Amino acid sequence: MKAEIIAIGTELLLGNILNTNAQYLSQELAALGYDMYYQSVVGDNFDRVKACISQAVDRSNAVIITGGLGPTPDDLSKEAAAEALGLELFEDEESIKAIEGYFKKSGRTMAEANRKQALFPKERCVIFPNGNGTAPGCAMTAENGSVVILMPGVPYEMKLMFEAHAKPFLAKRSNKTLVSRNVLVAGIGESMLTTIIPEYFEMTDPTVSPYCKPGLVTLRVTAAAESAEKAAEKCDKTVKELTEILGKNVCGVDCGSIENAVVGLLKEKGLHIATAESCTAGKISAAITAVSGASGVFDFGASTYSNEMKQKLLGVKSETLEKFGAVSAETACQMSAGIRKYANSDIGLSVTGVAGPGQSENKPAGLVYISLCDGEHTWVVRLMVGNAQNDRERVRNNAVTVALDLARRYLEHLPKVMDGHTDPDSPAPLNPEEFCLGMLNMQNQ
Amino acid sequence: MKAEIIAIGTELLLGNILNTNAQYLSQELAALGYDMYYQSVVGDNFDRVKACISQAVDRSNAVIITGGLGPTPDDLSKEAAAEALGLELFEDEESIKAIEGYFKKSGRTMAEANRKQALFPKERCVIFPNGNGTAPGCAMTAENGSVVILMPGVPYEMKLMFEAHAKPFLAKRSNKTLVSRNVLVAGIGESMLTTIIPEYFEMTDPTVSPYCKPGLVTLRVTAAAESAEKAAEKCDKTVKELTEILGKNVCGVDCGSIENAVVGLLKEKGLHIATAESCTAGKISAAITAVSGASGVFDFGASTYSNEMKQKLLGVKSETLEKFGAVSAETACQMSAGIRKYANSDIGLSVTGVAGPGQSENKPAGLVYISLCDGEHTWVVRLMVGNAQNDRERVRNNAVTVALDLARRYLEHLPKVMDGHTDPDSPAPLNPEEFCLGMLNMQNQ
Repeated sequence: MKAEIIAIGTELLLGNILNTNAQYLSQELAALGYDMYYQSVVGDNFDRVKACISQAVDRSNAVIITGGLGPTPDDLSKEAAAEALGLELFEDEESIKAIEGYFKKSGRTMAEANRKQALFPKERCVIFPNGNGTAPGCAMTAENGSVVILMPGVPYEMKLMFEAHAKPFLAKRSNKTLVSRNVLVAGIGESMLTTIIPEYFEMTDPTVSPYCKPGLVTLRVTAAAESAEKAAEKCDKTVKELTEILGKNVCGVDCGSIENAVVGLLKEKGLHIATAESCTAGKISAAITAVSGASGVFDFGASTYSNEMKQKLLGVKSETLEKFGAVSAETACQMSAGIRKYANSDIGLSVTGVAGPGQSENKPAGLVYISLCDGEHTWVVRLMVGNAQNDRERVRNNAVTVALDLARRYLEHLPKVMDGHTDPDSPAPLNPEEFCLGMLNMQNQ
Repeated sequence: MKAEIIAIGTELLLGNILNTNAQYLSQELAALGYDMYYQSVVGDNFDRVKACISQAVDRSNAVIITGGLGPTPDDLSKEAAAEALGLELFEDEESIKAIEGYFKKSGRTMAEANRKQALFPKERCVIFPNGNGTAPGCAMTAENGSVVILMPGVPYEMKLMFEAHAKPFLAKRSNKTLVSRNVLVAGIGESMLTTIIPEYFEMTDPTVSPYCKPGLVTLRVTAAAESAEKAAEKCDKTVKELTEILGKNVCGVDCGSIENAVVGLLKEKGLHIATAESCTAGKISAAITAVSGASGVFDFGASTYSNEMKQKLLGVKSETLEKFGAVSAETACQMSAGIRKYANSDIGLSVTGVAGPGQSENKPAGLVYISLCDGEHTWVVRLMVGNAQNDRERVRNNAVTVALDLARRYLEHLPKVMDGHTDPDSPAPLNPEEFCLGMLNMQNQ
């Protein structure tokens, strides 16, 4: 089965936003066993959109369209698709009710403009309700049997609608089953992975594809077979090999995110964590609390941006700040010990660093210290993000990942396997690279 | 002049990598005055690539192709383009020398496979040397006068080649200049805007297009003219009208983000802000500190997730928590007053809410209270995010925007125009919609 994706919206054509929907849908469609031939982006122009849809319907079995379902006059995907397929649009009662209900819930009344969002063909059309926005989607069937699927352009609305409605709809029409597993790896970059496990990236069944985020690589293992069971078998064999090779650097399989893994481990062990963040200033506590149920393991996080607050709340010593500076292993350790004490938690996690662009000679932008304290021991990791001067968010996001990974490693393995721990007043920073490779070698022995 | 972009590579089709080149080129081409009509992605298949190029050459004046210039057999962009344009390829001496030189520099010798990278048409072709890789690019001219530009797919090689060669080449052929202004609007949704200023969305010169984020709409005003000055004039006239109509709901013009606007206002007025976040748990402090130089206006933020910490750090009264609950206007007000006091700042900003999925009957997921305290007065806003049960991040992101917008409105207009302020112990929550529309009407009178 051939599939192609059409994203509609002038903001994509002008490069105002990145076409992340296309990447998400490509991965999902490939996993459903569809062969991807084309992706296109078209502006909000009726004739051009209609022409693109007609061409796509002729050459592909499934055409997935995102965007152009909004209430404004330049939202015209549905109108263009219907005309391309020779279908007429009528107001759908249930959809109108749903849209009115959506506005009511947030104490507003529906604007007239939203009425057009409830227009759908009466035949050859399945409506996909939208629980998370005003625009319902749908699947229209062309006379040649090809399907045209229309979904909102807002990524979170699109993803939820795809999962709930489009995916099952498309799965039914696919002639093979694909199964995927995601192995989340922290502490080893993509290029380092290609030198450690090159053979896996050349495999064809299952395939192994790397997807990178700051400090994280997801290895997506995908196998195709006539049955889900057979495909899963193939996947799991490869996943087992990968986890054996990568050892402690594996955060989890299909765990979603490193914050999920950390919150899960905290719950499992009945421990509470508290955070003290300079530099990242709330990004770690925000990540932890993005996991539903985090309140069971997280009580308090402090964004101590000024030295005064580091002293007042965390009890960082003024001598330490004077002698070593706010961005130092010593300060990081006193922060993790201090927040643990103040929040009366089991684990204290801290970050202090130079996000840039400002920097000093001995404290370059990209230098970050991350510390974990459990009351008995304190660990500190030194992170140096390269070429960071003009990328505050990259420095901060990498720091968040390494901090969560330090907590993850502690909860899974420490202090047993992790040596090099230090006391708050004379820490010997570990370079995360060595630190992670150390784990890796340890695993391989 | 019409332009379109074709990215070639199976890794894009499968979603293994994100098509960032398309975004970069779209922005650059729009700024050069080209009208962007299409973007496509095609796999490494000769016939499909050739067909795409032929279609593009027929409908666009400039076709920009990235990828497929490598040494491997599945690199075939140049071959397909030449055949589509009826041109023959010959080995170019200078290019061969350059490639050999590139290998020498890194102490290697050129592989035979790289020879094909030096093949170019002898006529209707300008070669773009590549100082940062082995693949030279080029501009081929079709018989109908359209140009086909070929560049490497590796982003940094492509960008450097575009800047040095393709951009000047395309600028010569462009007949107009585009100028854009971005008007950032908070407190009015997209559909509400279409009922307030429908005529603006139908304008053609300048054009006005809305781009939405949680709680924010950016109105991008774009004008074309023979000179940048003339285009800017047109833009600014429309921007002035929009800011007059939307009044206090305008966060700024080309201000980048609402956090930029808030930090800018705090610096301008020499004020410091402190945050107390339950629910958003660090997202507001993270947003503020994403702005370089935030340390001049932000010292401390607290993610007080538990009631204990709300009492211990912020001095929220236990009676208040018992009587009204943690998610209440009363608690929000005591939090903003408490954090202001603890951090010894000018302004205290607080959030408490139900992110979901968990909820109670009288405290549904999506209910958030946001408060600002300046020591004299305390304001509180009640926010209800609809259908939020399965979308923690949407609730949290909307809360961040409304909180930053409350600070922005305070710094620009309060307490002068903003009535309905209350004292911490008996607040009368304002619904943000009324609150914003109130501002809007006030502006229109």
